[in-house]
Amino acid sequence: MGIEIERKFLLANDDWRGLGQPTLMRQGYLVADPVRTVRVRIEGERAVITIKSKSTGISRGEWEYEIPVSDASELLARLCEQPLVEKTRHRIEHAGHTWEVDEFHGDNAGLVVAEIELDSEDEAFETPAWVGREVTGDKRYYNSSLIRLPYSDWKDSA
Amino acid sequence: MGIEIERKFLLANDDWRGLGQPTLMRQGYLVADPVRTVRVRIEGERAVITIKSKSTGISRGEWEYEIPVSDASELLARLCEQPLVEKTRHRIEHAGHTWEVDEFHGDNAGLVVAEIELDSEDEAFETPAWVGREVTGDKRYYNSSLIRLPYSDWKDSA
Repeated sequence: MGIEIERKFLLANDDWRGLGQPTLMRQGYLVADPVRTVRVRIEGERAVITIKSKSTGISRGEWEYEIPVSDASELLARLCEQPLVEKTRHRIEHAGHTWEVDEFHGDNAGLVVAEIELDSEDEAFETPAWVGREVTGDKRYYNSSLIRLPYSDWKDSA
Repeated sequence: MGIEIERKFLLANDDWRGLGQPTLMRQGYLVADPVRTVRVRIEGERAVITIKSKSTGISRGEWEYEIPVSDASELLARLCEQPLVEKTRHRIEHAGHTWEVDEFHGDNAGLVVAEIELDSEDEAFETPAWVGREVTGDKRYYNSSLIRLPYSDWKDSA
């Protein structure tokens, strides 16, 4: 098991654009309940199945396995909850950390979030000027929530 | 994707005992709903995660991936629905087919079923004399059902 320790932020402006390599991601969930999620994701040329436990603070248990892209494609079309989540991820290096800026598509168009993965809950990091308000722990921004309640439904109150 | 085509039977007598190699299996479910199941299983020295679609007749879509036994052990203890299902599987060759006789433990003790996997829904096979009544499609005998409603609760009406 790995431990995923992650903090999530909105963006303050568009200055992040052009800084990282974009990868198109298409993902869906076989289950997303309070105890666990099982996610199928195609990211560029590879695919993974990822199991996560519920969050404790900003940490979650995580188990990830690479699977054939053709299998992932079948699972996304036939078995995952619909609709799927589609987003473009931009990986941006900044002061020794990797920021992942996710720009959502479809019903979640307009939503952009920046995530940083940490080695411990209290790890210090430098925040780029284009990073805005923290939304870690706000369930509306969970990818697994965006299926049932897309950004288009609540962006005016965000 | 593989297609799993399987028929399930009760046992007519104990003459199957001693015919096959036994393997202890411990398994649990990350999800078991009408659309899909995600099962984690430790079988002897290996472990797999298996995704199945809902049944259409006696057929189901199936995707299976080997995972480290230590991962499976964590997933069974921390993330799968409880209780787990434990059984001893005996693989028995008979007239060109493999029969899997599953002898359940714990709350399902006393339950023994024999399964045969086929290449097509109408494939012919020879039934050993120790195989009894067919229970294919009887949801009470689904492994994923035995967690919520164990054999001890309904064996008197079976």
